[in-house]
Amino acid sequence: MPAVHHKLLLEEALQDSPQTRSLLSVFEEDAGTLTNYTNQLLQSMQRVFGAQNEMALATEQLSKQLLDYEKQNFALAKGEEEVINTLQHFAKSVEELNSLHSELATQYADKMVFPMVQFREKDLTEISTLKEIFGIASDEHEAAMVKYSRLPKKRENEKIKAEVVREVAYCRRKQHQAAMQYYCALNALQYRKRAAVLEPMLGYTHAQINVFKKGMELVSKKMDSFLSSVSSMNQR
Amino acid sequence: MPAVHHKLLLEEALQDSPQTRSLLSVFEEDAGTLTNYTNQLLQSMQRVFGAQNEMALATEQLSKQLLDYEKQNFALAKGEEEVINTLQHFAKSVEELNSLHSELATQYADKMVFPMVQFREKDLTEISTLKEIFGIASDEHEAAMVKYSRLPKKRENEKIKAEVVREVAYCRRKQHQAAMQYYCALNALQYRKRAAVLEPMLGYTHAQINVFKKGMELVSKKMDSFLSSVSSMNQR
Repeated sequence: MPAVHHKLLLEEALQDSPQTRSLLSVFEEDAGTLTNYTNQLLQSMQRVFGAQNEMALATEQLSKQLLDYEKQNFALAKGEEEVINTLQHFAKSVEELNSLHSELATQYADKMVFPMVQFREKDLTEISTLKEIFGIASDEHEAAMVKYSRLPKKRENEKIKAEVVREVAYCRRKQHQAAMQYYCALNALQYRKRAAVLEPMLGYTHAQINVFKKGMELVSKKMDSFLSSVSSMNQR
Repeated sequence: MPAVHHKLLLEEALQDSPQTRSLLSVFEEDAGTLTNYTNQLLQSMQRVFGAQNEMALATEQLSKQLLDYEKQNFALAKGEEEVINTLQHFAKSVEELNSLHSELATQYADKMVFPMVQFREKDLTEISTLKEIFGIASDEHEAAMVKYSRLPKKRENEKIKAEVVREVAYCRRKQHQAAMQYYCALNALQYRKRAAVLEPMLGYTHAQINVFKKGMELVSKKMDSFLSSVSSMNQR
């Protein structure tokens, strides 16, 4: 492996030396590793989001189910009022938890999954597009060079020769341009790499802290006293 | 509908009057409604448990995925140490959240789903078994009575008659016994009904409060300062 530099130098793009190509391959390998890694990381993040979303749906269903008790028309109505009131109270607190769960699911989507999806769709897709363009430009340049080297040395071919020289120059410019854009994107990726993995985790953790804080407000003293009244009612 | 009493009186079991049968049908209808309702409630509770369990698995995977960053052998290692350390820190905090999620899933299973499953398997299954036994005993008693009523009135049948009378008495005792057990269970069900729906919800809510409290301890000041250091590192 070649000595690793921190940047692909744009001024090396025109000369396109074996050393530069070798350094380029290191950057490409790094980008490939990042692509695979963030793909798996994104899957884990989507799984967390999916679980949170399912929890929001499940608590919504539970809350509705508790309210449904009243509609059952039990044949024996003794003491039902008290149970109905208590279940309505539980339903309300599950509903409040449900809105916390929904909010958390939205935060996971916006602050964790979305930045990662965007990084992959914008940054990584850009890299692979530029790689392709650079590859095509390199091939065309190569082909023009081969054409030039095979030109017969006779005088009457001056006109054709001039044409091929123009073609080579044109292809070199195109390749040079493609290389510079590709190098730029690969350098930028190194800069973005850190944020790409840390930002979603910051989003996840902030959302988690937020939900604990709101949850604590929810299960305040008021709730504690409700629970102990239900406990004692339940033991009667 | 007959006037609704709070209890099936055991002393009415022997006489087995139409009034008692009518009251019995009210208790049976109530038990049927409770069976259907708790079936749906149990499904909602199992869905909440399932979501919580999936969240535990998802956070476990996410934590592992964060630790995997180090094993990727990125070709470009610039500044990787800092990212690796930060991701290890995140992995640790996700792991701590994971153990909270696992604990919560276990609590949902033990304190919410299990009591409801047990109520259905013990109390409700007992009711339906006793109903069946009572039904068979009633049919047998009925058959013995029919046999008795069809006995020829002649003197020479005294021996057969005595046998049928014994059979009727035996069947009546059996039916009486079955009725008392069935009445007892139906009365007990009315007593258990309230606890059956409230206890799992108490379990759910206590578990939820517990996780918020532990979560708050987890995301203490220490965590806040870690997050702000990551935030600033991320913006460099």
